[in-house]
Amino acid sequence: MGGDYGPSVIIPAAISALQQHSDLHVYLVGPQQEIQSHIKNTRPYTDRLHIEPASEVIGMSEKPSAALRRKPDSSMRKSLELVRDGKADACVSSGNTGALMALATVLIGTLPGIERPAITAELPNRKGSVTNMLDLGANIDASAEQLTSFAVMGHVLSELADGINNPRVALLNIGEEAIKGRDSIKLAGDMLSNQSQIDYVGYIEANEIFDGNVDVIVCDGFTGNNVLKACEGITRFLYNQLKTEFTSGLWSRAVSALVWPLLKRFHRRINPDQYNGASLLGLREIVIKSHGSADSNATLFAINKAITEIERQVPQAIQDRVAQLLLSADNED
Amino acid sequence: MGGDYGPSVIIPAAISALQQHSDLHVYLVGPQQEIQSHIKNTRPYTDRLHIEPASEVIGMSEKPSAALRRKPDSSMRKSLELVRDGKADACVSSGNTGALMALATVLIGTLPGIERPAITAELPNRKGSVTNMLDLGANIDASAEQLTSFAVMGHVLSELADGINNPRVALLNIGEEAIKGRDSIKLAGDMLSNQSQIDYVGYIEANEIFDGNVDVIVCDGFTGNNVLKACEGITRFLYNQLKTEFTSGLWSRAVSALVWPLLKRFHRRINPDQYNGASLLGLREIVIKSHGSADSNATLFAINKAITEIERQVPQAIQDRVAQLLLSADNED
Repeated sequence: MGGDYGPSVIIPAAISALQQHSDLHVYLVGPQQEIQSHIKNTRPYTDRLHIEPASEVIGMSEKPSAALRRKPDSSMRKSLELVRDGKADACVSSGNTGALMALATVLIGTLPGIERPAITAELPNRKGSVTNMLDLGANIDASAEQLTSFAVMGHVLSELADGINNPRVALLNIGEEAIKGRDSIKLAGDMLSNQSQIDYVGYIEANEIFDGNVDVIVCDGFTGNNVLKACEGITRFLYNQLKTEFTSGLWSRAVSALVWPLLKRFHRRINPDQYNGASLLGLREIVIKSHGSADSNATLFAINKAITEIERQVPQAIQDRVAQLLLSADNED
Repeated sequence: MGGDYGPSVIIPAAISALQQHSDLHVYLVGPQQEIQSHIKNTRPYTDRLHIEPASEVIGMSEKPSAALRRKPDSSMRKSLELVRDGKADACVSSGNTGALMALATVLIGTLPGIERPAITAELPNRKGSVTNMLDLGANIDASAEQLTSFAVMGHVLSELADGINNPRVALLNIGEEAIKGRDSIKLAGDMLSNQSQIDYVGYIEANEIFDGNVDVIVCDGFTGNNVLKACEGITRFLYNQLKTEFTSGLWSRAVSALVWPLLKRFHRRINPDQYNGASLLGLREIVIKSHGSADSNATLFAINKAITEIERQVPQAIQDRVAQLLLSADNED
C-alpha cells in the first residue's frame, strides 16, 4: 500500500515479477477490495498470486513509534509477520522508511552480533560496476563497533549479491580539512585494519564515491542519507541545466532535435530507478525498501533484488561472517 | 605558495585582479626568488604589487598542529599576519585548509559571540541565483549554539555579498527516514524560531539544496564537507557518462560534432570554478580559501570574492548582527 502510487504501481510490478520467475509466489498485503480492484487479468498466475488482507495502512509521514504502537492490522506489519512466520522469504515495501525499520527490528529482530540494521543501496560508478553504500539513514550516529558491523554486512552483500570477489571496503571520511574525521571513524579504521577477513582499504572522501575504486563505502546514517539525497538533487539540477542549454536559441533547438535520443539514453543510464531497492541489512530476514516515488519498473528492480538476496541467503551469510570475525578476534586476544 | 599549482596560477590571477581593480594592492607572500621568477611584465602595476618574503611553505598534507607550532616564517602565517597587523584587508590562500583555519583562528581570532569560524561557499541553484552553505569542514560537530551562529553569519553574507534581501535560512536535516535528525539540529531550529531578526524557514533535505528555495543552508562541517564533495564527485561522473554517450557509435559521434559547443557551454556553466572562494566566516578579518586545484581564472574569482567582502565590511556586519541578536535574546528573557 506504500509509496506515492500504492497498488497502482506495486501490483503491475508484482505481476511482471511472476512472469519473470516461474517459481515465484507473491503475497499482496492490504485492504482486499482495493487490491482486487487493481487486479485485472491475472489468470495465468492465480496459483502464485495471493492476497493477504490487512485493514490498516501506515501513512508516509506517520511516526515510527505510532506505527509500532497503533495499527495492529497495518499492511506493513502483516507483510513483516508473513516473513517472521516463514510464510514469505522476503518483504518488499515502498512505505514509510522509519516505520519499516522500527517494525522490522521489533518483529524480525537483528542477527546475533548486530546491534542495529543499516540501510544499504547500490550506486553506479565509473568502472561500470556498482558500489554498495551504508548506512543511508537507519542510524543517526554510529559507534566504531557499528561501523565495523556495517563493513562486514556490506562486504557480504557485495560478494553475494553483486558477485564481487574479495570486495574492497572503505570508510567515508573527510581528509584534507581542519578536522580529520570523527573518533568513531578512526577507531573503526583501527578495528578493520586489525582483521584479515575483509579487504579494508582505508578512508575515502565523498568526491571518490563514484570512481569505482572501492566496492563498499561505510558511514553513519545521517551522513549517508544527506550524501545520497544531495546526489539525487544535483543530478536533477544538472539534467535540467542541460535541457535548458539544449533548448535555448535557434541553433541549439535545431541541434537538440537530433540529440534528444542521446540525451534520453543518458537520462535512462543515470536514472536512479535501475538502482532501486535498499536492503535493510542486519535483520534475520530479508527486507527491501523500494523508493517512495518508484514506478512499476523501479519496483520490479526492488522485487528482483529481494529474489537475489533470497537465492544467495544473504542474512545467513552475514551471520556466518560475523561469527567468523568474532571468533578470530577472540583468538587474537 | 599553496594549492596544486602554487605561484604559476596565483600570480597570473593576482595580475588580472590588479588589471580589474585600479585601487587594488596585492601582496605576494613567499620565497622572494621563486615569486620573482614567475613575474614577467608587471611594470604597469609595480607600485601596487608587493612581495612579502617568507622562507617556509606549509605542505598540503601537513597537520594543522604542526603548521601552528613549527614554521614561524611560513607564507601562510606571514599572509595572515599582514591582515592581523592592518597592512592588508584580506588574505586569499589556496593552501592547506586545516592549517589556514588553525592559523587564522589563533592569529586573527573570532568575533565576539562566535565560538568557531565556519567555512562557507556559494552553490548554484535552479533559480539562477546562489545559495550559501556552511559549515563545509571547519567543525566536525556543531552544537545548537554554533549552528545558530552559522545561521547568522550565512544570513549576513547572503545579504551583503549576494545582495539578497531578507535571505531565507534553513537547517539541513533528514526528514522522512527512521530518525528525524540530531538533537542539536532540533534545538537550533527552536532557537531560530524564537527570534525575529532572521527569516528562518525550517529544515530542508539534501535533495533540495539546488532548488533555490532557500538562500542559506546550515549544517555541521562533517556533513557539509561530505555533501559538497559528493556533489563534486557525481558531477564529474555524470559529465563523463554524458561524454561517453555522445562518443559511442557512429551516429552519436556525428551528432556530437554538432553538439560539442553546447556541451562545453554546459560544462562551463556548471563548472565549480565560478563558485571558487570559500569564506572563513566568524573571524575578525576576511580570509578566503581558494580550491587547491583552482586555475588562475578560479583563483581570480576567489580574489574578487575577498574584494567584495572588504567593500561590504562583512566581518563588521556579522559582529553587529550577532550583538543585535544577543541583545534581543536578553530583552526577551
